[in-house]
Amino acid sequence: MTIKLHGAPMSTCTAKVLTCLHEKGIDFEFVPINLLAGEQKQPSFVAKNPFGLVPVLEDGDFTIFESRAITSYLAEKFKDSGCDLIRHGNIKESAMVKVWMEVESQQYSPAVSPIFFQYFIVPKRGGSPDQAIIDESSGKLGKVLDVYEQRLSGAKYLAGDFFSLADLHHLGLTFYFMKTPCARLINERPHVKAWWEDISSRPAFQKVVPGMTLGAK
Amino acid sequence: MTIKLHGAPMSTCTAKVLTCLHEKGIDFEFVPINLLAGEQKQPSFVAKNPFGLVPVLEDGDFTIFESRAITSYLAEKFKDSGCDLIRHGNIKESAMVKVWMEVESQQYSPAVSPIFFQYFIVPKRGGSPDQAIIDESSGKLGKVLDVYEQRLSGAKYLAGDFFSLADLHHLGLTFYFMKTPCARLINERPHVKAWWEDISSRPAFQKVVPGMTLGAK
Ligand SMILES: N[C@@H](CCC(=O)N[C@@H](CS)C(=O)NCC(=O)O)C(=O)O
Ligand SMILES: N[C@@H](CCC(=O)N[C@@H](CS)C(=O)NCC(=O)O)C(=O)O
Repeated sequence: MTIKLHGAPMSTCTAKVLTCLHEKGIDFEFVPINLLAGEQKQPSFVAKNPFGLVPVLEDGDFTIFESRAITSYLAEKFKDSGCDLIRHGNIKESAMVKVWMEVESQQYSPAVSPIFFQYFIVPKRGGSPDQAIIDESSGKLGKVLDVYEQRLSGAKYLAGDFFSLADLHHLGLTFYFMKTPCARLINERPHVKAWWEDISSRPAFQKVVPGMTLGAK
Repeated sequence: MTIKLHGAPMSTCTAKVLTCLHEKGIDFEFVPINLLAGEQKQPSFVAKNPFGLVPVLEDGDFTIFESRAITSYLAEKFKDSGCDLIRHGNIKESAMVKVWMEVESQQYSPAVSPIFFQYFIVPKRGGSPDQAIIDESSGKLGKVLDVYEQRLSGAKYLAGDFFSLADLHHLGLTFYFMKTPCARLINERPHVKAWWEDISSRPAFQKVVPGMTLGAK
């Protein structure tokens, strides 16, 4: 049974799943979807994800979408290959992975996404970044990163002293964020900075970086 | 080992965890946190959840936060009591639970929350609801509910023909939403309406309803 990932290499959500596949050392076929041409809104794609968004994973005849659900599925199905990303079998550690996956989803990404959008998507559409939105989100993000700084001063990774999906889910969005002037919010916090340098230099993510060309000249 | 839930019965996030505890038939102690008095920002509470938000669960000396992480932890730890909310042991069904939990978190709640906020929180602060925000969110929500309508015409619940955390996570926020004029977005869609009537009438959630007094005269 072949694993097929439908996505766009430059998209932050696709990057999460690609990184997970590489961490696990899973063989897969990549099916590029041209987002600018609107391929994700074509009936054949909407039949796979009714929301018309990438990524979508097909494992034989089983189809799933939502990047964080896909990585959790892969981490569970392939729990014995590569890095154990969910700490299966250890209920407390796996609960901490869940807690910090939720923090990424509910606190971190909602603060970073508007900054990413202003610097990378708005200019592509011919506009210029709205500083008021950037400032508001920076304020929220600063508070979230204060919690990260404290957390990462006592543990090497978010869920504990082990790399997990909780860290991995930060990679795509933060990669682009680090190219904006707001990167100082991470660089100013020594433990967060060290954590970012650690997780972003992992070989699995480094394989994904060449495809992350949004904003490249 | 006692399970302690710190929260506010009227809060939508607390309602998710309370419903899960009742579905599982778990004994627990409820510790009320007075949000209006700012108890969630006191050092003793921030030591439990660094973001200063309810709910927080303590299971003996193990403390976790983020409502969806708490329900997942409980569903895993108590997998053999009450309703199986995560379809453990069936990798495809449990993956579908994850997919639709992500849909709730990434698509549904971001569209419903601003409507809830305008009708229930803004008036408490002396303001009046902003119709432009309500209209914009209603537009987004309508598109999400179109997908739900199609999905629920082929399966009794979101993840399949079984009630799961994917459905349960909708309960708190939707309960208040159904008291707003926007409730028509659900009432107009027969399969979504039937699903809502089904899940909201479950005995576990009915035990939580009396505490959900936001907006009550
Ligand atoms: N919550 C979804 C979000 C998916 C999403 O927004 N995908 C973007 C790329 S990162 C997309 O497909 N955009 C194209 C569009 O909006 O039409 C996930 O995590 O998979
Ligand atoms: N993503 C968090 C959100 C928690 C949250 O926003 N809690 C609200 C009540 S629903 C709260 O504590 N509000 C008090 C405050 O903002 O100070 C979760 O799901 O637990």
